[in-house]
Amino acid sequence: MRIGVVQGPNLNLLGVREPEIYGHETLDALNTRIGAAAAELGAEVEIFQANGEGALIDFVQDAAARVDGFIINAGGYTHTSVALLDALVGVGKPYVEVHLSNLAGREPYRRTSLLAPKASGVIMGFGAPGYILAVRGLISLLRARSG
Amino acid sequence: MRIGVVQGPNLNLLGVREPEIYGHETLDALNTRIGAAAAELGAEVEIFQANGEGALIDFVQDAAARVDGFIINAGGYTHTSVALLDALVGVGKPYVEVHLSNLAGREPYRRTSLLAPKASGVIMGFGAPGYILAVRGLISLLRARSG
Amino acid sequence: MRIGVVQGPNLNLLGVREPEIYGHETLDALNTRIGAAAAELGAEVEIFQANGEGALIDFVQDAAARVDGFIINAGGYTHTSVALLDALVGVGKPYVEVHLSNLAGREPYRRTSLLAPKASGVIMGFGAPGYILAVRGLISLLRARSG
Amino acid sequence: MRIGVVQGPNLNLLGVREPEIYGHETLDALNTRIGAAAAELGAEVEIFQANGEGALIDFVQDAAARVDGFIINAGGYTHTSVALLDALVGVGKPYVEVHLSNLAGREPYRRTSLLAPKASGVIMGFGAPGYILAVRGLISLLRARSG
Amino acid sequence: MRIGVVQGPNLNLLGVREPEIYGHETLDALNTRIGAAAAELGAEVEIFQANGEGALIDFVQDAAARVDGFIINAGGYTHTSVALLDALVGVGKPYVEVHLSNLAGREPYRRTSLLAPKASGVIMGFGAPGYILAVRGLISLLRARSG
Amino acid sequence: MRIGVVQGPNLNLLGVREPEIYGHETLDALNTRIGAAAAELGAEVEIFQANGEGALIDFVQDAAARVDGFIINAGGYTHTSVALLDALVGVGKPYVEVHLSNLAGREPYRRTSLLAPKASGVIMGFGAPGYILAVRGLISLLRARSG
Amino acid sequence: MRIGVVQGPNLNLLGVREPEIYGHETLDALNTRIGAAAAELGAEVEIFQANGEGALIDFVQDAAARVDGFIINAGGYTHTSVALLDALVGVGKPYVEVHLSNLAGREPYRRTSLLAPKASGVIMGFGAPGYILAVRGLISLLRARSG
Amino acid sequence: MRIGVVQGPNLNLLGVREPEIYGHETLDALNTRIGAAAAELGAEVEIFQANGEGALIDFVQDAAARVDGFIINAGGYTHTSVALLDALVGVGKPYVEVHLSNLAGREPYRRTSLLAPKASGVIMGFGAPGYILAVRGLISLLRARSG
Amino acid sequence: MRIGVVQGPNLNLLGVREPEIYGHETLDALNTRIGAAAAELGAEVEIFQANGEGALIDFVQDAAARVDGFIINAGGYTHTSVALLDALVGVGKPYVEVHLSNLAGREPYRRTSLLAPKASGVIMGFGAPGYILAVRGLISLLRARSG
Amino acid sequence: MRIGVVQGPNLNLLGVREPEIYGHETLDALNTRIGAAAAELGAEVEIFQANGEGALIDFVQDAAARVDGFIINAGGYTHTSVALLDALVGVGKPYVEVHLSNLAGREPYRRTSLLAPKASGVIMGFGAPGYILAVRGLISLLRARSG
Amino acid sequence: MRIGVVQGPNLNLLGVREPEIYGHETLDALNTRIGAAAAELGAEVEIFQANGEGALIDFVQDAAARVDGFIINAGGYTHTSVALLDALVGVGKPYVEVHLSNLAGREPYRRTSLLAPKASGVIMGFGAPGYILAVRGLISLLRARSG
Amino acid sequence: MRIGVVQGPNLNLLGVREPEIYGHETLDALNTRIGAAAAELGAEVEIFQANGEGALIDFVQDAAARVDGFIINAGGYTHTSVALLDALVGVGKPYVEVHLSNLAGREPYRRTSLLAPKASGVIMGFGAPGYILAVRGLISLLRARSG
Repeated sequence: MRIGVVQGPNLNLLGVREPEIYGHETLDALNTRIGAAAAELGAEVEIFQANGEGALIDFVQDAAARVDGFIINAGGYTHTSVALLDALVGVGKPYVEVHLSNLAGREPYRRTSLLAPKASGVIMGFGAPGYILAVRGLISLLRARSG
Repeated sequence: MRIGVVQGPNLNLLGVREPEIYGHETLDALNTRIGAAAAELGAEVEIFQANGEGALIDFVQDAAARVDGFIINAGGYTHTSVALLDALVGVGKPYVEVHLSNLAGREPYRRTSLLAPKASGVIMGFGAPGYILAVRGLISLLRARSG
Repeated sequence: MRIGVVQGPNLNLLGVREPEIYGHETLDALNTRIGAAAAELGAEVEIFQANGEGALIDFVQDAAARVDGFIINAGGYTHTSVALLDALVGVGKPYVEVHLSNLAGREPYRRTSLLAPKASGVIMGFGAPGYILAVRGLISLLRARSG
Repeated sequence: MRIGVVQGPNLNLLGVREPEIYGHETLDALNTRIGAAAAELGAEVEIFQANGEGALIDFVQDAAARVDGFIINAGGYTHTSVALLDALVGVGKPYVEVHLSNLAGREPYRRTSLLAPKASGVIMGFGAPGYILAVRGLISLLRARSG
Repeated sequence: MRIGVVQGPNLNLLGVREPEIYGHETLDALNTRIGAAAAELGAEVEIFQANGEGALIDFVQDAAARVDGFIINAGGYTHTSVALLDALVGVGKPYVEVHLSNLAGREPYRRTSLLAPKASGVIMGFGAPGYILAVRGLISLLRARSG
Repeated sequence: MRIGVVQGPNLNLLGVREPEIYGHETLDALNTRIGAAAAELGAEVEIFQANGEGALIDFVQDAAARVDGFIINAGGYTHTSVALLDALVGVGKPYVEVHLSNLAGREPYRRTSLLAPKASGVIMGFGAPGYILAVRGLISLLRARSG
Repeated sequence: MRIGVVQGPNLNLLGVREPEIYGHETLDALNTRIGAAAAELGAEVEIFQANGEGALIDFVQDAAARVDGFIINAGGYTHTSVALLDALVGVGKPYVEVHLSNLAGREPYRRTSLLAPKASGVIMGFGAPGYILAVRGLISLLRARSG
Repeated sequence: MRIGVVQGPNLNLLGVREPEIYGHETLDALNTRIGAAAAELGAEVEIFQANGEGALIDFVQDAAARVDGFIINAGGYTHTSVALLDALVGVGKPYVEVHLSNLAGREPYRRTSLLAPKASGVIMGFGAPGYILAVRGLISLLRARSG
Repeated sequence: MRIGVVQGPNLNLLGVREPEIYGHETLDALNTRIGAAAAELGAEVEIFQANGEGALIDFVQDAAARVDGFIINAGGYTHTSVALLDALVGVGKPYVEVHLSNLAGREPYRRTSLLAPKASGVIMGFGAPGYILAVRGLISLLRARSG
Repeated sequence: MRIGVVQGPNLNLLGVREPEIYGHETLDALNTRIGAAAAELGAEVEIFQANGEGALIDFVQDAAARVDGFIINAGGYTHTSVALLDALVGVGKPYVEVHLSNLAGREPYRRTSLLAPKASGVIMGFGAPGYILAVRGLISLLRARSG
Repeated sequence: MRIGVVQGPNLNLLGVREPEIYGHETLDALNTRIGAAAAELGAEVEIFQANGEGALIDFVQDAAARVDGFIINAGGYTHTSVALLDALVGVGKPYVEVHLSNLAGREPYRRTSLLAPKASGVIMGFGAPGYILAVRGLISLLRARSG
Repeated sequence: MRIGVVQGPNLNLLGVREPEIYGHETLDALNTRIGAAAAELGAEVEIFQANGEGALIDFVQDAAARVDGFIINAGGYTHTSVALLDALVGVGKPYVEVHLSNLAGREPYRRTSLLAPKASGVIMGFGAPGYILAVRGLISLLRARSG
């Protein structure tokens, strides 16, 4: 089992950008933790970060042939990218949406996600550990489906 | 560590009501699984189900003295109960909101949660396993806080 | 054939509350007339009134095993109760919504019914005789379905 | 007692147009049933169908001198015709609005009726039998009023 | 100078329909007064009433070759007819919109006129004398333009 | 019979300000014409212009004891002054609202008048002659009322 | 003279829940003060608190026979309960709405009260002393009415 | 293969009405061109124009038995006629919506089409040649379907 | 302790303007009563009325140096004056908003107050006695604050 | 004559992504067909596909010097890209918008196109053949313009 | 070159009112700085402050004959005064809108300016130095225009 | 002191694209002028232009280590890019938003800026000189802050 993890714009600033909201862990440290959690459950991950919408779509299209599902934190594109949604739905793999903070309690323009309606699951507010929950949740969904 | 689990209206129909959306597991079976998952992480749970808004508020107020946080699936009250939100915020304990289905992809009147903006975390779309993720997530939050 | 009749909040005030809108007949008198109309068509009724949302949901869940369909006047919960809608849909029985007055011509907050979109039929504006029409209509629907 | 029955645009397609929504009975068969139901209650009917808004208004104005009230299914004009509403209110006779399907559960543009706020009663979702309920309901209202 | 006067749906009920709003004068009496007022100012009128939107459009298209401008009370079509607006604008003659009652103080659905934005002038609230003001106003506009 | 004429903010710029919209006649010339038109019909006028909302309200309150009704062009206050509306309604005299241009065809923020719903009549789009129509219209209303 | 005082959901947490907003006085202490203030003006009070919507409606219906008017702080039901509004209006007694904090300055979902439009008076923002003002205000209204 | 072409209100003014928007070609000339384009592809057309909504519905119902699909330019009814939509959907033939101008760039009230959501295709902005594209497009769709 | 009382536009008409809404007492009589109530509690008042927004702002700015807080009934400016709000907030004194009638039950444009969100308290619906409650309420707030 | 064809995000998935909506033809096959159709009319095409908004804007700016007009299917950017609209308008060439499916009948967020208001023409719902219609339509517009 | 500087309501409180938002400099000090900055660029200024809308309009009308353009900080009238906008547009001089704070980041009712759409330029967020930028910007615009 | 200047999509077309709106100066010429203005005040600039959202975010993240603040004209991304906003806020440097034209007076979709609420200042409508004002304004803000 293989999972594609999509880290959207500004997530490369993790640990630096607004740590009171997003925490002090860097993206590298987080990615390592994600990989370990997946390995513990017998899965591997392929992680990609970019600031450009096109690059993220390219990755989703490209990785789709290699993975069973996606975990995505699309950052600011969460609220504005129909094109990224089209890519995720177009490649036909289940995806789980994850956010570090609880978007429901933040600025109005962050409260609506274009990706969420077609996601398999949504997890938000747990900080970095939310990715670990997403790994567990996605694997559980994939096993139920293939089971 | 002790967690209050609030099961809202119609969750007693679990396994019976619209199984294509909510699954075939009964509430009793689910509750047992929740308890086991908590025990595995060294926590215990106190679970309450009622169809009445007042009864749920009574439980939240009452259990607050005994628990460190809540996991709540408020069912139909998710979208309409300011009073339940007031109770959760009023007792001053962190809570995680969980839903079996992914509300973002359902009817418009299910897409807005009055409870979510002040929740610590939100998990939805994973079916019954979502409660297990919520147990893990809440315990992680409580440990980070007390740590 | 057996019909559950759900009388929502304040309907126990019938004959007393705003008679220029709701008429002078008491709830008991109305209930007797409903029973007689059903009997005339070979059906029996089970009638329940409560002011609490939870109590009404409890009744719907409980009566579902004994009846073929519901007639419901949810009073003020018509406009605000997702939980009651969930109960009606969850038990899988057809229901007819009835109102004494024509809600379309009343205050804006009375013009939208959360229950109506999934109702089999809606009847309003005929005063107490509207219940008799609802009995006839529901029986006609049930017979067409079972026929 | 005499009732004007107004059948709006496309109701002449009844039995042909989208039978999974509107049923298989033709307009002629339905009209005959309406007449019989009225006769059973000592009333007669005058039925008119047209696809044009102006023709329907002409009929309402013209028939008003001969009838005690109207039953109207204005089809697509239900949602758009202030002029038809003006005619119905202008002639000063009570009217009952009837629809074959339950408009509350259909496309958004069908959920609002311009005619409903000033109707005496509204009945929808019962298919062709809804007209029979409307006949009974209107006669009941007329008798209460004249009584 | 020649003026086309367009009397929309239900204006043939004038003097009969809701006299507390629209007054007791009949359409014939009003039309005679309009003609006299125009004659006094050296103009003649051509008056047409119909209940159908198509018939009113036909008249506007047809009369355009014979008149210098229109006075129109489009009744219920005021609020709903893009097609009538297209006809008035399409024939390229100035028109004055008149209403017996002051629409600004009536039901919300009567407060917006599709015809008004492209009208030369609007007069409302003066009852039947409003038509006389409209005759004077339109003639004044036509003379200013041709002057 | 005596009429108060209220000229609102910037009407003192008449003939200077945007003449392609408001015409070339000055306020003095217009006022003279208004007086003459009233005199012709046996009435006299009292005309007041100010740029301040408070000054206009003071005038309305003060003049109310001396006049039978008002003609008002409230300029920019048309769209924003609840206080001016309160004054007009508070003194209990009928008033006619007049505008030089047809507000229905102008910028969105000019299309709604706070004063219109309680006005006796509204006239707009006829330029300066609209005031003459307003004088005639108001006198006609006053005579009908006192008649 | 006798006043029913309705304390809605979570008011039993008074003195405990968010004291920076709601103050440190407990509900018992407050209730005692309300009774004393009423007694000083020759009236007595009957106070009821519950977290359930149905229980509050039951109380309003039941107490109506014993009291001359109500003071109500409906807590979270202020914004969502048509049924409670129906009860208050249905029993035909005047009521005064009171809130500890000034709802106009709080979260958007707290700014609209379903109960306010039919209340005799509204008082908010004065903390616990607001109840004393409400007692005085209601007695003043009742005396003016009966006077 | 046979195509019904529905020309809505005011299209008989083509070549006369606002030629800077709608062009100089008359309806007759356009219709001839449509027929020729269809003939070239082995199809024939039946063209109908009327200003009345009812007449257009009558034509759609009547022609449905003779044609394989419709091309419709409903003019002003595009934005307001649920009844015409019902007719088109009711007769069960595919239809292509065509407009001379690009409605997306025109007045707000022209930007929404009630007919478009259930059309097979939409073509706008190409002037008269848009009809030729519509003929080709509809034939292509019909052949793909029957193929 | 000294209180500034701001009486907004048209309050000088008190006792004359719409007495069925605003009562029969004149402003002078009311002001005398306000002074007496304050005196009874050991405070004095400074009362100012004007119809102009600027004059009211001038007063607030000027009186601020002499008073401990304000009671304001801003009349029509309640709903439209950001500038008056800025003055009240700018001078840094607490203020209580009072209205004779219950605005929540009146016309839609009266239901929103720009001043309310930053007021210390709001009282409405009690007629002239509402001012006395406001005096008591404001003094209570000032004493709690200074205490 | 030379036409730039802009294929937006995810169109490289054509034939793979949701074929029940977008068909089975690949982008390469479609592009070949587009070229052939243009050649048949004496024009040539230059086709570009990218998933990134910036890359598409770069192409539009760059190709503008070489082409007479554009055909664009902007995929998900249709609904969100002001920048792409600015590029198309900025280079001053006419463009035709094309979509495989009829967006008017799809999800709400697909129904509004930012590009459409300034397009010369819009074609949607015809699948791949819609591009051929667009080639014909654009060439017809270019010839009319240059003619 | 001469510039009119309009200082709106409450700006006379500058240095006193909410200094954390508006700074500590008084209006006199600011005005002196504005004059000096203009002088440095060879221009002179005429500065006026008032709290009344009418007084500000009077100034704009009066000063227009003496100045080449205006700099205006309309304070609270920015959001509510159509009359002030009419004055600025009516006198036909360019104007620059300036605000001390960045309104885009403040309360919702401060985010929309009625004056901005017809302003030549807008500057906000720079505190008092924003006026100096406005002087430079306006002079640059006037020179470009006259150049 | 060093300033990052971000030139968004299509600004490379400056001098070419719609010169009646954006002027005739090229981006290179403008950039030279910006550098000179900064140098005059003892600062240097680093200027970057790209059409892609991702490239702009990359620049902001990268340049942040080298600059004290940003001046940004985000072109079409102004209205749609949460991701660019996140980058600007995430790197923790003050930024000034500048636009050549006055967006408040342009198309509705250009009137709202996602970047503005968190900008230090906003300048628009002054054409190219607006950048010079922005340089001065930003330096003034930075000096006040560091002072």
